Amino acid sequence: MKVGVVKEREVGEQRVALIPEVVAKLVQQGYHLCVESGAGDMAHFSDDDYRAAGAEIGYSIEEVWGGVDVLLKVAPLRDREVEWIRPGTTLISFLNPLGNPWQMQHLAERHITAFALECIPRTSRAQSMDALSSQAAVAGYAAVLLAASNLPRFFPMLTTAAGTIPPAKVFVIGAGVAGLQAIATARRLGAVVEAFDIRPAVKEEVQSLGAKFVEVNLEEDTVAAGGYAKEVSEAAKHKTQEAIAAHVHSADVVITTAQVPGKPAPLLVTERMVASMKPGSVIVDLAAEQGGNCACTEPGRSICHQRVTIIGPINLPSTMAVHASQMYAKNISTLLKYLAPKGELVLNFGDDIVDAACITHEGQVRNPRVLQLLHPAQTLATTV
Amino acid sequence: MKVGVVKEREVGEQRVALIPEVVAKLVQQGYHLCVESGAGDMAHFSDDDYRAAGAEIGYSIEEVWGGVDVLLKVAPLRDREVEWIRPGTTLISFLNPLGNPWQMQHLAERHITAFALECIPRTSRAQSMDALSSQAAVAGYAAVLLAASNLPRFFPMLTTAAGTIPPAKVFVIGAGVAGLQAIATARRLGAVVEAFDIRPAVKEEVQSLGAKFVEVNLEEDTVAAGGYAKEVSEAAKHKTQEAIAAHVHSADVVITTAQVPGKPAPLLVTERMVASMKPGSVIVDLAAEQGGNCACTEPGRSICHQRVTIIGPINLPSTMAVHASQMYAKNISTLLKYLAPKGELVLNFGDDIVDAACITHEGQVRNPRVLQLLHPAQTLATTV
Repeated sequence: MKVGVVKEREVGEQRVALIPEVVAKLVQQGYHLCVESGAGDMAHFSDDDYRAAGAEIGYSIEEVWGGVDVLLKVAPLRDREVEWIRPGTTLISFLNPLGNPWQMQHLAERHITAFALECIPRTSRAQSMDALSSQAAVAGYAAVLLAASNLPRFFPMLTTAAGTIPPAKVFVIGAGVAGLQAIATARRLGAVVEAFDIRPAVKEEVQSLGAKFVEVNLEEDTVAAGGYAKEVSEAAKHKTQEAIAAHVHSADVVITTAQVPGKPAPLLVTERMVASMKPGSVIVDLAAEQGGNCACTEPGRSICHQRVTIIGPINLPSTMAVHASQMYAKNISTLLKYLAPKGELVLNFGDDIVDAACITHEGQVRNPRVLQLLHPAQTLATTV
Repeated sequence: MKVGVVKEREVGEQRVALIPEVVAKLVQQGYHLCVESGAGDMAHFSDDDYRAAGAEIGYSIEEVWGGVDVLLKVAPLRDREVEWIRPGTTLISFLNPLGNPWQMQHLAERHITAFALECIPRTSRAQSMDALSSQAAVAGYAAVLLAASNLPRFFPMLTTAAGTIPPAKVFVIGAGVAGLQAIATARRLGAVVEAFDIRPAVKEEVQSLGAKFVEVNLEEDTVAAGGYAKEVSEAAKHKTQEAIAAHVHSADVVITTAQVPGKPAPLLVTERMVASMKPGSVIVDLAAEQGGNCACTEPGRSICHQRVTIIGPINLPSTMAVHASQMYAKNISTLLKYLAPKGELVLNFGDDIVDAACITHEGQVRNPRVLQLLHPAQTLATTV
């Protein structure tokens, strides 16, 4: 079975789907690897590194995109890239299926079997394939570095001959994988950390990292399938904003990570809250790509509003390309070996991982949420 | 006695000589403070903050620069600023006297009594006035954040479902105040740290911070007055380069902090050493302003050489303007109160602090090293 690793063409995408170390292991297990020339350049892996690991280097689009059985990729496809893939190919990548249902339709029409890493179920069995989680951990770490680099203050407490510096106060909103890594990193750097989440179950994890948990009782269900946060009512949103306002006010740094899968990010930090912060404070909004948790966020930019710096990074994991790629490679290669344990694809749709992650197969879109987006009238009766 | 705090005009200078909190204390002790409008803007202190602390706000150059008894400043003067200061004024600031001897001459001619904070002796009695040290601590911290933000890898070891991430290796060259703070910060972030210094006496301090000390026996004296590193022989420089080459090679991050007061920075990291590093590695050269410890450094720029990122920051303390100003304010106000304990200047040149820090007085340049630079022929016989 021939497995292709393509060069990412998305602006700012520096990751690569497989790193040479993982290529070497797959080659040893009998897979035939074809890596597009330059695929690892931005993540500091050269063609020679891949060659030494036992891969063939492909120099043309036809050779890699159009000449393999399984195609591995990181960023969702650009539309023209769909055309480069030969019908019958199996594609494994982030695909953003809910944000791009028509492209899923197009993949199905071209008879491409597409697996979206976003749709790997959050079960312990699938944990090592969960690229959303691994990349979120990278983002949480990088967000704290971004905040610390932009804060005109120290994070740690210092006792010096020039006086005592109190520790910075960091407030993390959303304690998923990114939020927990942000808490851990801010604690490492010596900050005093508070964290908020609408899911009461994460309290213990937050506290075990040495942070204070800010609670709110929303009197409604806040946890969706897979442990993700659920979209809540308007009343609950209002109550949430009230609960966090005082903590935003007193923080030197706010890191927001609240996302609801397939929905715009909830607005949590209002313009008024931003204005209440100390001059020089910093907000890093990890939900910028989904519209932002802060009213002032501009995706992809760092702005100053009322003397507060608001950073809305896009694709933060990509800035840590070596380790982000290493973790992604572990995730995607685990899935590859799960789907083709003996070098040949055997898709068992009775398996929950295969069933959840496979978006298109045999000319059909098979993911119900994508189908719903494509044909809203037909499924309206069953929506919540 | 009227004390002026001026607005810094140097490009990129965001610090201010006094922060409102320190102004309030001085006002309470009977000093009359005049702060130039906008002086604290870049460090996030407003005119209103200073007014609330009891200072008068000065709106013209005549009022502040030309209308006070003592003038407090951060960055060395631009030449035209010398003209703004009224003869008879006492100036306290960083002055870069050895880099700018002719300006010292000019200050003397204008009968300005100038104290250079660079020349505060490194004694325990003067420790709380030592702005070089306080600002070096800021630079050491900020250098690690800069390195971590630019490294495509994690600093800490992580054990995740997507595999184990080994800790980053950081090599700190020069274990003065900046180097020690860099070691402490890199350790906080979870890196494995090695440190090198030509002064064997710093070994214990390095080890107490959890770093490994890289030793070299130069067979000559390496410590100058005040505990600073001394300029060493060519043979010793060669031996030093040999000693560090292997450590640079295996490091993910190198932070160089080696400076010799009044001399260009020693070249320690050669182009060949840079080329030997892993792709994606990062060098932060804190000696960039003095010419750099790395052969590839371009002051004020971040460049990529042989796939290694080399950052040569200028005025790094300024990026942490709030706390850098807070520490500087503590240093300069301590010196002010030392020179004018009862609200009037009493200069006792028998005191080692006054003697060392006072560069010009009563129309004369009185610092011997500045005099030597101004009149090399007369003093040639006594140079080393």
